[in-house]
Amino acid sequence: MSEFAAVDVIRAKRDGAVLSDAQIDWVVDAYTRGVVADEQMSALAMAILLRGMTPAEIARWTAAMIASGERLDLSSVTRPTADKHSTGGVGDKITLPLTPLVAACGAAVPQLSGRGLGHTGGTLDKLESIPGWRASISNDEFKRQLQDVGAVICAAGDGLAPADRKLYALRDVTGTVEAIPLIASSIMSKKIAEGTGALVLDVKVGSGAFMKDLATARELASTMVRLGQDSGVNTIALLTDMNTPLGLAVGNALEVTESVEVLAGGGPADVVELTLALAREMLAAAGIEADPAKVLESGAAMDTWRAMIRAQGGDPDATLPVARETEVLRAEADGIVGAVDAYGIGVAAWRLGAGRARKEDPVSFGAGVLLKVKPGDAVRAGDVLLELRADDPARIPAARATAAEAVVIGSTQPSSTNLVLDRIA
Amino acid sequence: MSEFAAVDVIRAKRDGAVLSDAQIDWVVDAYTRGVVADEQMSALAMAILLRGMTPAEIARWTAAMIASGERLDLSSVTRPTADKHSTGGVGDKITLPLTPLVAACGAAVPQLSGRGLGHTGGTLDKLESIPGWRASISNDEFKRQLQDVGAVICAAGDGLAPADRKLYALRDVTGTVEAIPLIASSIMSKKIAEGTGALVLDVKVGSGAFMKDLATARELASTMVRLGQDSGVNTIALLTDMNTPLGLAVGNALEVTESVEVLAGGGPADVVELTLALAREMLAAAGIEADPAKVLESGAAMDTWRAMIRAQGGDPDATLPVARETEVLRAEADGIVGAVDAYGIGVAAWRLGAGRARKEDPVSFGAGVLLKVKPGDAVRAGDVLLELRADDPARIPAARATAAEAVVIGSTQPSSTNLVLDRIA
Repeated sequence: MSEFAAVDVIRAKRDGAVLSDAQIDWVVDAYTRGVVADEQMSALAMAILLRGMTPAEIARWTAAMIASGERLDLSSVTRPTADKHSTGGVGDKITLPLTPLVAACGAAVPQLSGRGLGHTGGTLDKLESIPGWRASISNDEFKRQLQDVGAVICAAGDGLAPADRKLYALRDVTGTVEAIPLIASSIMSKKIAEGTGALVLDVKVGSGAFMKDLATARELASTMVRLGQDSGVNTIALLTDMNTPLGLAVGNALEVTESVEVLAGGGPADVVELTLALAREMLAAAGIEADPAKVLESGAAMDTWRAMIRAQGGDPDATLPVARETEVLRAEADGIVGAVDAYGIGVAAWRLGAGRARKEDPVSFGAGVLLKVKPGDAVRAGDVLLELRADDPARIPAARATAAEAVVIGSTQPSSTNLVLDRIA
Repeated sequence: MSEFAAVDVIRAKRDGAVLSDAQIDWVVDAYTRGVVADEQMSALAMAILLRGMTPAEIARWTAAMIASGERLDLSSVTRPTADKHSTGGVGDKITLPLTPLVAACGAAVPQLSGRGLGHTGGTLDKLESIPGWRASISNDEFKRQLQDVGAVICAAGDGLAPADRKLYALRDVTGTVEAIPLIASSIMSKKIAEGTGALVLDVKVGSGAFMKDLATARELASTMVRLGQDSGVNTIALLTDMNTPLGLAVGNALEVTESVEVLAGGGPADVVELTLALAREMLAAAGIEADPAKVLESGAAMDTWRAMIRAQGGDPDATLPVARETEVLRAEADGIVGAVDAYGIGVAAWRLGAGRARKEDPVSFGAGVLLKVKPGDAVRAGDVLLELRADDPARIPAARATAAEAVVIGSTQPSSTNLVLDRIA
């Protein structure tokens, strides 16, 4: 591998040049090894954010991130593999019912997940509210559980795309998270290295998502679908609405409870709709003919859920943590709920203790927000709109103001929007 | 002072916003204190480079850099003070004859200088080739010498604009040197903090300068002139050509020798011309009526030079270091010298050991390039074009190729260019 000066690579991108394969290979590898310093990579990340990258540059950057670590070999798993990735939203617990459902339909679902940071929750934080459940398992345990249960949700091992781990932490503190080439390569490097055969991307659009507008979300989705296809992963993307929280529960244990309701055949309509839509896509991408609605109804998905939780030390029958404090927010006047803003609810839940401000902070498993209304609902003055849950009462005042602002009550019915906005294959 | 999150300030500039006074004050101060990390400041610097800053932002940034350290009080100096700053070029030894000349005309010249990095030389490196000469003096010595001799060239103390010192080192390794707001605030924060009453900027334009084109150089000059005027420093700028090295000598001791020739009434015409042009501007800006050409001729400038060198421990009569190896480059055919490219000569001198690759490297005092021809000179095949000087013969081959390419020999007379291209007041 050729040696470059980091400053020359930064300057090239800064001035709008297309980086060569050799420059990309070198800078990603040298950054992983600590030869390129954090302050150099952050300047490069900012230049990438403002100057962009060609599809070929993004593909090479992704390949270099994969090459920075190990690549899992799932050939010992006899079932077709299919994974899902969401770009993150508020109340987005879909991974929890979806993974066992798709497994129960005959696929193996290798779901390597992350923790929450900022106003969006993390799947691992949610599952850790189940007593005994372990997020970290070895590669061997991972493959065995994938074969035996068909469903694994766990933390990505340290060996997978270490360049991405390092770069992600850097981007978070340097204002360079929102670069499409870096978001796409971060997500896809991990998914390709994880070894899945099929991948469905749930690209969130709206106030509670990283992508606020459809055009940017579409660009990100197309970029990732192309990266996946070019690497032999059968990839499709759904663009889904994230202006309103998914379901009624926002917060770790609260979302586990709602997910179990879905697996039991109940749960909020939007969570069920999106779970089934993503399940159909995953099964189609994996080449499996099955009707997930029927499998859900049969109780087989719940059986897989219980096996999956048990396999990682969790007790599926345990009582989940409940927050010590509850406060209700009520409607001040009669009207119709025009909006429940996902970003505002996400920030409120985060302030109540459901999320963390720094990576090393603990989360409060019982904290969060329970929605008692959704857009379009008619309310009378005094009706409960939201329940705020927190372990620490001092957290409630700051959350209350944000939560109250998030619920907009008007006099007319809001225009209805589809949950699935577009499909990119 | 308000507290901000660094990432919010970075994002604001990244997205093209104008930073508030409070944001600028905070981020510069917090960076100086280590609260804002290097990787955050480099991302901000890249965003500033690509998004720009308004004049008001640049003024505030400069003020914040000044406020990060001490401000010298030169009120004890009874003569009018006038300083000069060059943005850096190849063979640019003008500070050496200019400082004692302007002092001999009646001004006090508080010349805080820097070291060379990359292909441009540094004034302190040049003077350190004089045996015994010390670059570092205390603030009290500085003021006393300024009053007694009228001329000081020394290293800026650690107390002056420490934010700039830290940021400059960071920009150097992160591809963010070329941002006009950052260049202007870096130069002007030090000059304003140094306490000079008048300032003449020599903004270099051309291959051997940081500014390659006249429009960018003009923008930088106007920005700095405005910053100086707004801070009560009588500031003007000359834009001068840096496509050809200044004079015939490029390298530390070689340039001292050439400077002494100018002080003795000789020296290359371009060095004399620029020295006198800058001296006239400095004297006018300081309100002193004097004819520098006559003062140069009188030998008074040479007397001041000798006093200035002696005051800092140097021996003005000492033999200067001479490089151990000399190699000559000869013309391959008859012709007319069309160009002697400043950048190529600068890189060659740097490779010969006159400059440094890292801040901590030593320089070779005797190393460098002696020009035997200038653009427009007729040459015959076999005539000497350049002399390369190095202490380490292993350095010559890489320098030879670059130096040879820098001298362009053609069949027609090159169009003549003025040394002073524009004046901005």
